[in-house]
Amino acid sequence: MSRARTIGVIGGMGPEATVDFFAKLVSATPATRDQDHLRVLIDNDPSVPDRNAAIAGEGPSPAPRLALMARGLVAAGAELLVMPCNGAHAFADAVREAAPGVPFLSLIDATVAATLARTPDVRAVGLLATDGTLSARLYHDAFERAGVAALTPSEIEQRTVMAAIYAVKAGAASEERRAALRAVAERLCQAGAEALINACTELPLLLREGEVVMSGEVVPVIDSTDALVRETLAAARGPAEAARDA
Amino acid sequence: MSRARTIGVIGGMGPEATVDFFAKLVSATPATRDQDHLRVLIDNDPSVPDRNAAIAGEGPSPAPRLALMARGLVAAGAELLVMPCNGAHAFADAVREAAPGVPFLSLIDATVAATLARTPDVRAVGLLATDGTLSARLYHDAFERAGVAALTPSEIEQRTVMAAIYAVKAGAASEERRAALRAVAERLCQAGAEALINACTELPLLLREGEVVMSGEVVPVIDSTDALVRETLAAARGPAEAARDA
Repeated sequence: MSRARTIGVIGGMGPEATVDFFAKLVSATPATRDQDHLRVLIDNDPSVPDRNAAIAGEGPSPAPRLALMARGLVAAGAELLVMPCNGAHAFADAVREAAPGVPFLSLIDATVAATLARTPDVRAVGLLATDGTLSARLYHDAFERAGVAALTPSEIEQRTVMAAIYAVKAGAASEERRAALRAVAERLCQAGAEALINACTELPLLLREGEVVMSGEVVPVIDSTDALVRETLAAARGPAEAARDA
Repeated sequence: MSRARTIGVIGGMGPEATVDFFAKLVSATPATRDQDHLRVLIDNDPSVPDRNAAIAGEGPSPAPRLALMARGLVAAGAELLVMPCNGAHAFADAVREAAPGVPFLSLIDATVAATLARTPDVRAVGLLATDGTLSARLYHDAFERAGVAALTPSEIEQRTVMAAIYAVKAGAASEERRAALRAVAERLCQAGAEALINACTELPLLLREGEVVMSGEVVPVIDSTDALVRETLAAARGPAEAARDA
């Protein structure tokens, strides 16, 4: 095998999600000794301005900080960039422009591809995501291009989703939050969702496949973190062309 | 509070240990939102030459690579360096020389200090560590300066410890490995150890406090990863002087 590419992680949004991505990346790497693992550079910068506030037009844009992180990671040796935060992908162009020639693997594209691979005949998915990810239509547009309807929680239910996500960020995820999130997920399925998308990197810490069952059938839960881990491993170890196309 | 220092992590030795340190650092940070967390730069470079082979004189020195990582992290903005790998501390001088003026928090010193704080009257500790950490006497000397005897496993038992550590690196820690390690820990206590030192950053993944009980009393297990997490948080958030003295 030719030398694998060094991975640069634009992280800290939030830190638990970056830890989760890094842990899953290491655990998914086929390795029998340290030296088989991939080199991973992480900039865990939790001071990036709030993505939701920025998308709502109520706060400063995170774009300059994301661009700075991308440039810093490339200067440090990153040959492939990832950003384990869905909402931040509203500003993905700033990352691409800051690091021309370095492949950037989109978390959104990875998740949509993982959904279509897992449930090829799916007609509608339920989106569990932040307000910012929903209002920037990051998943709506990608799924609609694939002919899949994207269902979202009601306004009141969405507050439950946001409260659960911010509880993870505060290190205060509880069984009560999990149950409330599960109820929102079940409502999406009753409304027609045939699969659920954990479209926020904090959500895998709250909702796992097997926890939502409708009419005796486990509803597939597609995890954006897992999808990005798989694409990252493939691109880091695959030929340069594969990474560039991604 | 003045701005906290950016932490640079010389990592990848092994990757699971770096994940464990990062996860514990994030989890131990008092925070109610992303922006309360610390900026952490991680260079997870698993290709660093094997520390045990180098200490045994049977492989290349990791020192040049560690120095390169230290310089890279400082160039990227690190204001405080840590290295969550005990054996690599045999080459800590290379890190200090590569980053003059940037505090380097020794994992060994942090662990010895945590041991004396936790068990002030301890007369003997049992060292669970790699061959390299033991033969470089990283803990023997530090504990002896504090008047504490450092007990080590027999040659055959030490092979059990090494097999357990390398199983973690290979992602193959099993209940059998855990039980065998626990048996070695119990033998150290029978030989007089009043506390056990998890002096390898892979070991917290295999042995936890509460698992070794002698004459009905839980034997304290001092975890080098936990000790470094606490010192890192204090130094990152404390006054510049504290970090510089560390």
